[in-house]
Amino acid sequence: MNEELIHPKELPFQLYEVLDTESLLKRARFEEHNKETFDAILETANKIATEKFATHNAKADANEPTFDGKDVHMIPEVKEAFDAYAEAGFMAGRYDFDEGGMQLPETIMMACSGYFMAANPSSAGYPFLTVAAANVIRNFAGSQLTEKFMPRMLSGEFTGTMALTEPHAGSSLADIRTHAVPADDGNYRIKGSKLYISGGEHQLSNNIVHLVLAKIQGAPAGVKGISLFVVPKFRLDEQGQPGQRNDVALAGLIHKMGYRGTTSTALSFGENDDCHGYLVGEPHQGLKYMFLMMNEARIGVGFGAAMIGYSGYQYSLAYAKDRTQGRLPPNNAPTDPATEIINHGDVKRMLLAQKSYVEGAMSLCLYAARLVDDINTAESGELKQETGELLDLLTPVVKSWPSEFGPKANDLAIQVLGGAGYTREYPVEQCWRDNRLNPIHEGTNGIQALDLLTRKLWQANGAGLKTLQQRIMQDFEKASGDNCQLLIKSTLKYLQQLMPLIPKLGQALQGDKQPELLANATCFMNVFSSLVMSWIWIRQANVAEKALENCEAADKNYYLGKIQAAKYYVNWELPLIQRDLGILNDLDASCSEMQPDWF
Amino acid sequence: MNEELIHPKELPFQLYEVLDTESLLKRARFEEHNKETFDAILETANKIATEKFATHNAKADANEPTFDGKDVHMIPEVKEAFDAYAEAGFMAGRYDFDEGGMQLPETIMMACSGYFMAANPSSAGYPFLTVAAANVIRNFAGSQLTEKFMPRMLSGEFTGTMALTEPHAGSSLADIRTHAVPADDGNYRIKGSKLYISGGEHQLSNNIVHLVLAKIQGAPAGVKGISLFVVPKFRLDEQGQPGQRNDVALAGLIHKMGYRGTTSTALSFGENDDCHGYLVGEPHQGLKYMFLMMNEARIGVGFGAAMIGYSGYQYSLAYAKDRTQGRLPPNNAPTDPATEIINHGDVKRMLLAQKSYVEGAMSLCLYAARLVDDINTAESGELKQETGELLDLLTPVVKSWPSEFGPKANDLAIQVLGGAGYTREYPVEQCWRDNRLNPIHEGTNGIQALDLLTRKLWQANGAGLKTLQQRIMQDFEKASGDNCQLLIKSTLKYLQQLMPLIPKLGQALQGDKQPELLANATCFMNVFSSLVMSWIWIRQANVAEKALENCEAADKNYYLGKIQAAKYYVNWELPLIQRDLGILNDLDASCSEMQPDWF
Repeated sequence: MNEELIHPKELPFQLYEVLDTESLLKRARFEEHNKETFDAILETANKIATEKFATHNAKADANEPTFDGKDVHMIPEVKEAFDAYAEAGFMAGRYDFDEGGMQLPETIMMACSGYFMAANPSSAGYPFLTVAAANVIRNFAGSQLTEKFMPRMLSGEFTGTMALTEPHAGSSLADIRTHAVPADDGNYRIKGSKLYISGGEHQLSNNIVHLVLAKIQGAPAGVKGISLFVVPKFRLDEQGQPGQRNDVALAGLIHKMGYRGTTSTALSFGENDDCHGYLVGEPHQGLKYMFLMMNEARIGVGFGAAMIGYSGYQYSLAYAKDRTQGRLPPNNAPTDPATEIINHGDVKRMLLAQKSYVEGAMSLCLYAARLVDDINTAESGELKQETGELLDLLTPVVKSWPSEFGPKANDLAIQVLGGAGYTREYPVEQCWRDNRLNPIHEGTNGIQALDLLTRKLWQANGAGLKTLQQRIMQDFEKASGDNCQLLIKSTLKYLQQLMPLIPKLGQALQGDKQPELLANATCFMNVFSSLVMSWIWIRQANVAEKALENCEAADKNYYLGKIQAAKYYVNWELPLIQRDLGILNDLDASCSEMQPDWF
Repeated sequence: MNEELIHPKELPFQLYEVLDTESLLKRARFEEHNKETFDAILETANKIATEKFATHNAKADANEPTFDGKDVHMIPEVKEAFDAYAEAGFMAGRYDFDEGGMQLPETIMMACSGYFMAANPSSAGYPFLTVAAANVIRNFAGSQLTEKFMPRMLSGEFTGTMALTEPHAGSSLADIRTHAVPADDGNYRIKGSKLYISGGEHQLSNNIVHLVLAKIQGAPAGVKGISLFVVPKFRLDEQGQPGQRNDVALAGLIHKMGYRGTTSTALSFGENDDCHGYLVGEPHQGLKYMFLMMNEARIGVGFGAAMIGYSGYQYSLAYAKDRTQGRLPPNNAPTDPATEIINHGDVKRMLLAQKSYVEGAMSLCLYAARLVDDINTAESGELKQETGELLDLLTPVVKSWPSEFGPKANDLAIQVLGGAGYTREYPVEQCWRDNRLNPIHEGTNGIQALDLLTRKLWQANGAGLKTLQQRIMQDFEKASGDNCQLLIKSTLKYLQQLMPLIPKLGQALQGDKQPELLANATCFMNVFSSLVMSWIWIRQANVAEKALENCEAADKNYYLGKIQAAKYYVNWELPLIQRDLGILNDLDASCSEMQPDWF
């Protein structure tokens, strides 16, 4: 039903009109690029996503991978898609030219990934995980390991995984039991069980490179004793080719409610005491390395949630323009023809809410990607520093807001389709099932709220918050249009309630009201993220309002839609934080007082 | 993991302590009953639900019915469960003794149905649909049709369906195209297509009795031309036995995201021009008959949503008491043992929210069932009248609030389980998928909001609203405990904002701001239903607060939990309506202004 994965104006609007991505061309790292090379890579992503990924999204969901006790089997389209992605050079898109990369900005690479996530999040999982694992190796593993593994991962010859979770240790990685014993060859022998490892087994590549968290014998208890290891499925021979099978075994496949095309695995390391692992960086620094990459992974989760949400939105929009049902005055005689359901007020509401969620989430994540570019390439050290603090502060929001509101959008898409939406004959229920993973992985949204309230807010003496405030106020000063002025007024009313609350919460965190406040951390996330999202929407509305003064007739509707979505967000979603402000001000104890035995 | 389908104290609390169901024993209709017979039937329901329904809930989900072009096949446990239900007499539980029934109150029958819905909503669908169809026949079909079909439906020999929706006509039944032509034998020949007909084909019974909406040739356009027909799969021979196959054919099975055990069918009537249909009651009155039964069906949907929500809540609660993860002060050294996750504030929040949603929804639906008993058996005509108006007003809330918040509870249950909750190895994702149907069928929740705002609120000059207000105030006057006093104060603050708003909305409905208001109908539903739910929770908290003065030690925790859930509801959920009150007061136009071309 959808002709395009993404509205043809959406990414150009976000990239060039809102984020001024062209300004990156002035930086040394990107000086060999121009808008045409950016557009060409975006067009390639769109083409491969449309032709190789979208085409088997439903089929991969209906035919999940199987394990016959020896090998994992999946539909052949997944490998075709993986190979097309790798061949087009996307794996190495962000890397230096001399590493075989395209030296492209994060902002552009993230936008490219949007096509793949909108088309088929499960099949996109394999290359995305490989890129993430390669990045950890490149940053922390030292030249020997990097030379062995990274080029083959970037070419798509090897794939990668992140093996963190264990059956008894998910959110609490401090408690992992997988351990590593030094061996005579200078490497380690790994032993333990890992669970929910995405892409942990398949036949898409010649080798699978697991990045495994484990404790070296005798290491300190807790997070300070965790190290990181490269553990390949096949050890490399002297020519660097996959040789002897390493002692890593698939214990079983996990059957998920969604994201079914990506294998989720239980893995056993060292059942025969012969699992070779290669230490990444220094001993006991594993969790630090992982967390240094976490910003990137969390932006990726947020953006994936936004794009799955977007996909459902586009489908329900097309359906609502086509499906007729009921009548509206003045043409409401039984003999009048039925109207398209998009004309009903409540359907408009459900579509506009979706638009505000998914285009808001996309805009937020692309903003975060732009911050990564500034951290990597800004010329002033000061700008790098302040941008780093801002990104740290925003990361919990970037991960959790889209992963809350993307599934909400998918839920509304089902409702717009009604009975049809409840069936597997239509794609929106798969979107919901796929997206439901995002509030859980890479740190549950509950943990994101705690991270924001107890750590990120106070980091570097609140430097991130100061930068955020400055940027919000700068943007508000620039937004002089009538619509934006009204939206800014409403937003400032709440921002002025939040700011004096923050020191009060800081005191509570140190005092005996800490349990009450921690149980209400999600309220703080609601307030903070909803104000951030109002700002993100006002940024878009401001561009649209200005563009309307002088745009081509064909673009007018697009900009009017942006302004209306901003109005919806600020008028309908932002005022919900009145509840949360009240609870935080009262340090309400309804949740913390509850006792396990009272349930 | 759950030992009990429903906490052993929950239904006795709702039935005897909150609703005083024993007071019904004074009425002539129930005078042969006593608390022991009520308890015996509840125990039977619990036993059959536990032994025959719960045991194949996951299996029926994983093995949905298949159609080989001739017959529909399903796992044999479904028929065993159906037969056990019918044999125990539940089909006829509400009917007169001389009809072979048990002459039980609706309140008790609804409570019984709770066990089946908690155990296995898909398999419960077949008997529940049969009971609903039998009820329509009994009330409107005249003695000849009733005698032929009803007893065999109540014995479980025949099953029933409601065949309303057509491929092009779901919410808008006015547009159905199925038609009926009078035949020489005094009956009708039916022709048309129906879609999403639950239980439309299977081999559980000797015959399937379809209740089909169709238009008699030459009938007026719109809803005024719709008639209702009994259309059996097999026509009855002279002995009343299923004989010749009627011209009703299964066009195909629909594949749903949940509720997979209940067949959803596309049916063709009269492909060979030989589909015999028997008119129910008068011509052109079909929709009226259906709507007279709608209160019952909608309470059933609400209660089902509550119970599926409850089922997920119970599982996630048991999981949270068992699963350990992380540490809490003062035992938060890495060497301390991990704590059960129920002790973390954010997990408490997710469990307490679930409790407030599902036990609140159960209580609301049982209250509605009690209103049905009062309508059917109250001795004063005035009480019957006013109760009827109250039930009409509450019905949109009873259908839609549980079906919004039951799935929300299931969503939180998934989140409590984390990665495990996302897998099909655990039951909570099935709960969510099953429950997602409830906001859609029996009138979408958007349509319920319109029904409340544009019709039910004003019916009989607002008599329902007056009765509701009186009952709320009576209950508030009785609730003298300290906790209840605080909750009442918070609730009245919002109630006092709603009441003056209502006449203002009435004026807007008549004027040129109607489109703005209709697009905001869901905000009115939020305000109205959240105030109703606060009242429902205060009713429970009041009973609990009084019981605490003098209860057995073993029950103390249960009552404390009720009070805490009421606090949670009023402190956390009710204040969200500040947003909705603002939008309604402003007649906000964010949604109504949006134009289809702007998306």
